[in-house]
Amino acid sequence: MIQTNGKKIFAELQADAEALYVNCGYLMRYAVGFAPEDGAVVIDKDGVTLYTDARYIEAAEKLFQGTEVTPTLWKGKTKKDILGGYKTLAISFQETSYAEFLQLNEIGVTLVDADARLATLMEKKNDWELSRIAKACEIAEDAFNALLPQIKEGMTETEVAALLEYTMRKMGAQGLSFETIVAFGAHAAVPHHETGDTKLRFGDEILIDFGCKVDGYCSDITRTFLFGDDGKHEDFKVAYQHVLRAHELAQEKIMSGMTGKQADAIARDYLKEHGYGELFTHSLGHGIGLNVHEKPAVSPKSDKVLEDAMVFSDEPGVYKAGEYGIRIEDTVTLKDGKVKSFMSKTDKNLIIL
Amino acid sequence: MIQTNGKKIFAELQADAEALYVNCGYLMRYAVGFAPEDGAVVIDKDGVTLYTDARYIEAAEKLFQGTEVTPTLWKGKTKKDILGGYKTLAISFQETSYAEFLQLNEIGVTLVDADARLATLMEKKNDWELSRIAKACEIAEDAFNALLPQIKEGMTETEVAALLEYTMRKMGAQGLSFETIVAFGAHAAVPHHETGDTKLRFGDEILIDFGCKVDGYCSDITRTFLFGDDGKHEDFKVAYQHVLRAHELAQEKIMSGMTGKQADAIARDYLKEHGYGELFTHSLGHGIGLNVHEKPAVSPKSDKVLEDAMVFSDEPGVYKAGEYGIRIEDTVTLKDGKVKSFMSKTDKNLIIL
Repeated sequence: MIQTNGKKIFAELQADAEALYVNCGYLMRYAVGFAPEDGAVVIDKDGVTLYTDARYIEAAEKLFQGTEVTPTLWKGKTKKDILGGYKTLAISFQETSYAEFLQLNEIGVTLVDADARLATLMEKKNDWELSRIAKACEIAEDAFNALLPQIKEGMTETEVAALLEYTMRKMGAQGLSFETIVAFGAHAAVPHHETGDTKLRFGDEILIDFGCKVDGYCSDITRTFLFGDDGKHEDFKVAYQHVLRAHELAQEKIMSGMTGKQADAIARDYLKEHGYGELFTHSLGHGIGLNVHEKPAVSPKSDKVLEDAMVFSDEPGVYKAGEYGIRIEDTVTLKDGKVKSFMSKTDKNLIIL
Repeated sequence: MIQTNGKKIFAELQADAEALYVNCGYLMRYAVGFAPEDGAVVIDKDGVTLYTDARYIEAAEKLFQGTEVTPTLWKGKTKKDILGGYKTLAISFQETSYAEFLQLNEIGVTLVDADARLATLMEKKNDWELSRIAKACEIAEDAFNALLPQIKEGMTETEVAALLEYTMRKMGAQGLSFETIVAFGAHAAVPHHETGDTKLRFGDEILIDFGCKVDGYCSDITRTFLFGDDGKHEDFKVAYQHVLRAHELAQEKIMSGMTGKQADAIARDYLKEHGYGELFTHSLGHGIGLNVHEKPAVSPKSDKVLEDAMVFSDEPGVYKAGEYGIRIEDTVTLKDGKVKSFMSKTDKNLIIL
């Protein structure tokens, strides 16, 4: 059965406003588990209404039978009709365009920013959400394992990405968390390399950063490995062990109650001590949920306290321009105060195909 | 070489503001052909600046060598630093969140809406843009032709979608225009059916609505066909011929200079005359470019005049709830006053596998 958070959201927001209005995909999905293209969700003390058009109404009526959600046709209704009765209305200032803000403002309702409260709610996942993320992570790992024996010399980065994506889709993924990054050789030194037509050669390193969605929830994983050993990877191999150790240390030592900054420092300090400080050019992690990048930040600037049921990435990386790039990333959560990784099916010791 | 529209945009916008600031993916792509995750483009009389972070700067510097675009690191710069010198700044009210609007407003610059001018610029494609759309359409058709012989009884809608997407990706697509719709049997009667786990049975109709991206530009195509003929498709077959005729009539009769409404009426009037008026529940078409849905609308409400070099869909559809759905869609443009379809490689006569 579909999972909805409408009443839970209202309980959190009712101190600020009489109703909440959201119409962006991931917020509708958070509220009612369903995100029609031209839709909106209104939540007030009387219940949860999903507005949609003729294309989706039939599906919505089936989906929400017996739930707290009432699907309703937009047709013939203006924003004033559906929102004009409220004195105060919470919206996401982040996800509402200024153009729409102007329309809402004309109705004469006082608009209140719901972002902080929504982000706080969404940061901590319930069991169903954790199970969706776990499933998205399992598919990603299974697909990676299925991919490895199919990688052949001469394949392009794009072909490898296509094969991995196809495998995830066949295994039940509903879509990608983000555009798959496949980087061969020195391309891996560019953290966000654009997957291209470069062909795989013996001895190349391969970095793959990817993830998929299940019921809207994302996985995010990076693995770095070698396509054969041409004997020219001594520095790479030493660096790999250090990145792996930083990645493991983070999982061993991050505890609920730490700030994002303290968590980030576990991996960062280790890499600094071993001479890789300058080469670790990004944060240790970011929150993961309906968005592949959300709260909490696990970065040198974050004072956010990490808590049980939050989900974030553990992804230290070392990048030497023109030579190599190494990133090892798991999606993890905090449970009973400690890190629990969603990834356990892939080998993180250096793989040499 | 990368195609940029920076100076062209500035020429259009300088009557309204001293500079343009955009930071959403497709507008950055339109301005400079490149859309880093955390980036922004500023265009003023002195040139085109792409702000980005350390992850993208190397790639950007290579890409923009010898062009009008100067890549620059965000690092250490506030919005006030880069925008505070202007009295008037054009932004997209549609694509700027209210949260960001508030930040920009604090700088003290007067904000002007660039949407209408940008939409007008983007509506008419230049030769390079048309070539990208043509390529995206060619890949979509080639992939469809490659898919047909691989469709087997028992495959799920999701498996068919995955196979089609994989084929497009292998053929050079950079991504999907939108989530692929594969609908078996009566699912096709739901115009935006959510692709699921339903298995294909002998005699099912199949509706596939899909598209891919090349350099950010989209294709959009729908084909409807039968998986074997169980003799129960007499109404479907009659309706199919009428939808096909409406689709063809639109391509024969739409001319530059017509309004969206007049163009829509060509197909709509034909379907009405043949008793399908009530079953054609959406518009004839929508503009296609960096977004799969953009201007111009080809709908009963649109007074927009269609012109040469605009790109839009021709997609009449007939939906009989619980029974069948038929949609036949090409991506087309106007050239020398007449419709020129980007699709010529797939058979639109009713296919029975």
